[in-house]
Amino acid sequence: MKIAYLGPKGTFTEKIALELFPNDNLISIQPIRNVIQAVESQEANYGIVPIENFYNGEVRETLDALTECKETRITKEKDIKIVHCLGVLPQHSEIKKILSKDQALEQCSQYLCKKYPKATTIATSSTAEAAREIVSKQMIDSAAIAPEQALVSSGLKVLEKDLCPNNKTRFVVLSRESTESTGDDKSLISIHPPIRDKPGVLYNSLKFFSEFQINLESIQSRPDGKKGYIFYVELLGHTRDEKVRNAIDSIKKYMDPSGKHKDTIKILGSYPNTHWKDEN
Amino acid sequence: MKIAYLGPKGTFTEKIALELFPNDNLISIQPIRNVIQAVESQEANYGIVPIENFYNGEVRETLDALTECKETRITKEKDIKIVHCLGVLPQHSEIKKILSKDQALEQCSQYLCKKYPKATTIATSSTAEAAREIVSKQMIDSAAIAPEQALVSSGLKVLEKDLCPNNKTRFVVLSRESTESTGDDKSLISIHPPIRDKPGVLYNSLKFFSEFQINLESIQSRPDGKKGYIFYVELLGHTRDEKVRNAIDSIKKYMDPSGKHKDTIKILGSYPNTHWKDEN
Repeated sequence: MKIAYLGPKGTFTEKIALELFPNDNLISIQPIRNVIQAVESQEANYGIVPIENFYNGEVRETLDALTECKETRITKEKDIKIVHCLGVLPQHSEIKKILSKDQALEQCSQYLCKKYPKATTIATSSTAEAAREIVSKQMIDSAAIAPEQALVSSGLKVLEKDLCPNNKTRFVVLSRESTESTGDDKSLISIHPPIRDKPGVLYNSLKFFSEFQINLESIQSRPDGKKGYIFYVELLGHTRDEKVRNAIDSIKKYMDPSGKHKDTIKILGSYPNTHWKDEN
Repeated sequence: MKIAYLGPKGTFTEKIALELFPNDNLISIQPIRNVIQAVESQEANYGIVPIENFYNGEVRETLDALTECKETRITKEKDIKIVHCLGVLPQHSEIKKILSKDQALEQCSQYLCKKYPKATTIATSSTAEAAREIVSKQMIDSAAIAPEQALVSSGLKVLEKDLCPNNKTRFVVLSRESTESTGDDKSLISIHPPIRDKPGVLYNSLKFFSEFQINLESIQSRPDGKKGYIFYVELLGHTRDEKVRNAIDSIKKYMDPSGKHKDTIKILGSYPNTHWKDEN
């Protein structure tokens, strides 16, 4: 089988791909949208992309690209613990610069603000690149944020471990097949109200979830570029469960009584609930 | 006056700072959290940081760091149009690689997936760095995404302009002062329910906004790391307006009847509404 994953090689996405599909043909693709398109166009059987980080929030490119698909759905979620460490040259002086990939710098900003309030941050193309740069330029006044192994293999000394606790990234496995209900599932849906009165719409949509006793895991709004909004809602339950089906039908009927707007609600997938946020 | 802004120099944040405070002492600070802390600790009179991009979504570091402040509030919003262009060497061949900063690659992913579905993306530390790298390494099979001026000044030819339409970043001006109501304001608040039954809590909170006829501009949830959730809500109105005050008081009373949890609702600021999303 062909498994498309967000590259390049050596990233956490590849690690997830190797764990889930150890004997398959893994294909590194960039960016996220191309991974999702590879599944949609049947070039790949499965796709693996990040969807959320505990500190950075949802990956909007994944959500947006999924709503553009006709067949591709989320079928599984899997998280990985991200442990960032601080590395310096053995002969380091006072630390004035911190190098890392943007997302890692953002994830560690609380730590940095507390421990190195006077240091400035510099973005690099990857966390491994940050470590390499410090070594190659012999930057004794700088530290790199990267996984422990990347620091050590570059020749840096690890000054501190696990800079941002509870840091996890959640990945999703995509395919054109749909899943069966297991009794403990989640579903991701997008709601794009054709009505422009968004506060009432959001409130009234949530009413249906509440009426059918469906718990919500998260909710995010984003502008649609046409003075309207799209809401991404992750709920507890499978879209084949009767109460979820009923809630979705009720929202559809309420928002689009004439049935003219096909994309009012899109189901981006139903998948077993791993309770990844509860394990902290 | 001292104005702290998210550096480095030459970014869109500096551009906003220069426009708003042309005659003041501008101080470039990184990362975002340190800019916000500079205002909180009275080192700076004002701070300027990004809070949302049309494609990437909200900047969670800004939201999270603001909730940690006691005095610092948003007092103004200002957006800037982001026009990304594609640049190549004049003697370029077929384009196989696209270089840019992560956020820019993400913003342009729909364009890239359509026009260059086979090209791979490579992250650089800044958009300007992408242009420089193509020139210095004479990468004839590569293109850079950057503002037009950065491409041209590096010696690249502009192949296409405005790759992602409607792309805007919204910045906020922070201070320890609060604003007066102008009659057309927005307010950003964080709701951290001490109750763990989040779906009901969210729905019931929205009920108060609906009852007091307060429109919501956006809503985002994020895990709090303790099996609970924080909701960021941007609403239409000033927190000094009677109906906004009443709605917030009602939510507080509902969520925390004993008044034990001081941080259940935090007001991150009230500021004149620029209607930045409506202008597209």
